[in-house]
Amino acid sequence: MRALIPYKKENAKSRLSPVMGLEEREEFVELMLRDVVNTLCESEIEAIDILTPSEKGVAEDIKANIVISELGLNDAINEYLKVTTEPVLIIMADLPLVKSHHIQEITSNDRDIVIAPGKGGGTNILFINDPSNFHVKYHGSSFLTHCQIAKDRSHTLHIYDSFMTGTDIDEPQDLVEIIIHGQGFSKDYIENKFGTQLTKGRVKLCSIA
Amino acid sequence: MRALIPYKKENAKSRLSPVMGLEEREEFVELMLRDVVNTLCESEIEAIDILTPSEKGVAEDIKANIVISELGLNDAINEYLKVTTEPVLIIMADLPLVKSHHIQEITSNDRDIVIAPGKGGGTNILFINDPSNFHVKYHGSSFLTHCQIAKDRSHTLHIYDSFMTGTDIDEPQDLVEIIIHGQGFSKDYIENKFGTQLTKGRVKLCSIA
Repeated sequence: MRALIPYKKENAKSRLSPVMGLEEREEFVELMLRDVVNTLCESEIEAIDILTPSEKGVAEDIKANIVISELGLNDAINEYLKVTTEPVLIIMADLPLVKSHHIQEITSNDRDIVIAPGKGGGTNILFINDPSNFHVKYHGSSFLTHCQIAKDRSHTLHIYDSFMTGTDIDEPQDLVEIIIHGQGFSKDYIENKFGTQLTKGRVKLCSIA
Repeated sequence: MRALIPYKKENAKSRLSPVMGLEEREEFVELMLRDVVNTLCESEIEAIDILTPSEKGVAEDIKANIVISELGLNDAINEYLKVTTEPVLIIMADLPLVKSHHIQEITSNDRDIVIAPGKGGGTNILFINDPSNFHVKYHGSSFLTHCQIAKDRSHTLHIYDSFMTGTDIDEPQDLVEIIIHGQGFSKDYIENKFGTQLTKGRVKLCSIA
């Protein structure tokens, strides 16, 4: 069983730019990647592949194989799936709340496809038992798209329902979830830069003066 | 085992006002309440109490007891807990993605306290085995507060990790989750008013022209 982490450091997480500069975002995205890799290392995943457009983007001490592809995200993953003969867990690099028990629950499920939805229709984790008989289509409402692809191919499907795997870090407000529920490098980094502010509604992010 | 739903129809969900007028919000909040009550009716909850400031606010055909209190949310719930001698599930009225299996998993847990966190530090569902030995403090980062209260009272605690119970409907972007993952009256209502728009990031809400 392999895990695949699509990853791009260069100008990463542009939707966080209202609260973080380019260097900060590139530093932060690497820390989230480290948290995800550490979580995978604690689970029963046998090999970790990082799919990235350039070798330079991945720090050398990160314990994973590097798969270089200059194709767009979907084409790059679909090329990878074509040549992979064992089950694959595709996990996004911006999921620092995921723990090893989530990975174990997802990979031990006996359905053909397991999808952990993200906010706003995203696919945060996608487990594919037979990669030769599936293709991905990220962006847009990929959660519904992947459910439909599974149905079209008569695959059995499980929706993995978790707040923690559902929390991808994309927008400033998401950083609050790291402060409240986080762990590891990402939490240390964000707690050093931001605090939380109580409002009548949800807790909001604020700068540390 | 009882369920308690705090509910206020009058000027409800003011944070949805950028996309919904007062009447629409009051109509919508009642539909979400109906979905939550229906879900509870399908589970093993024996009695449903709706805690509200005014009897007029709850439609007569909703199958639940009405508990009137003009106190603030926390005081009203804490008064209720003081006089309740059986386990209580406190569930917010803005959780239309919750299904009966969530309720069954939460109430069958053997810990003293079960908390289902919401976005931005909220407490969406709180199961209290012994109401005489707990008090609530909603608003602000109530998830962390309730964890601390459980710890201070030496209660055993389970964090219930679910995307669906974690999705409270408070802000316009949350309505997208109803369109993608919803069910029941809330989904019908929102799908008649809004559509979704694909962006480079998360799916966004848009008006139906």
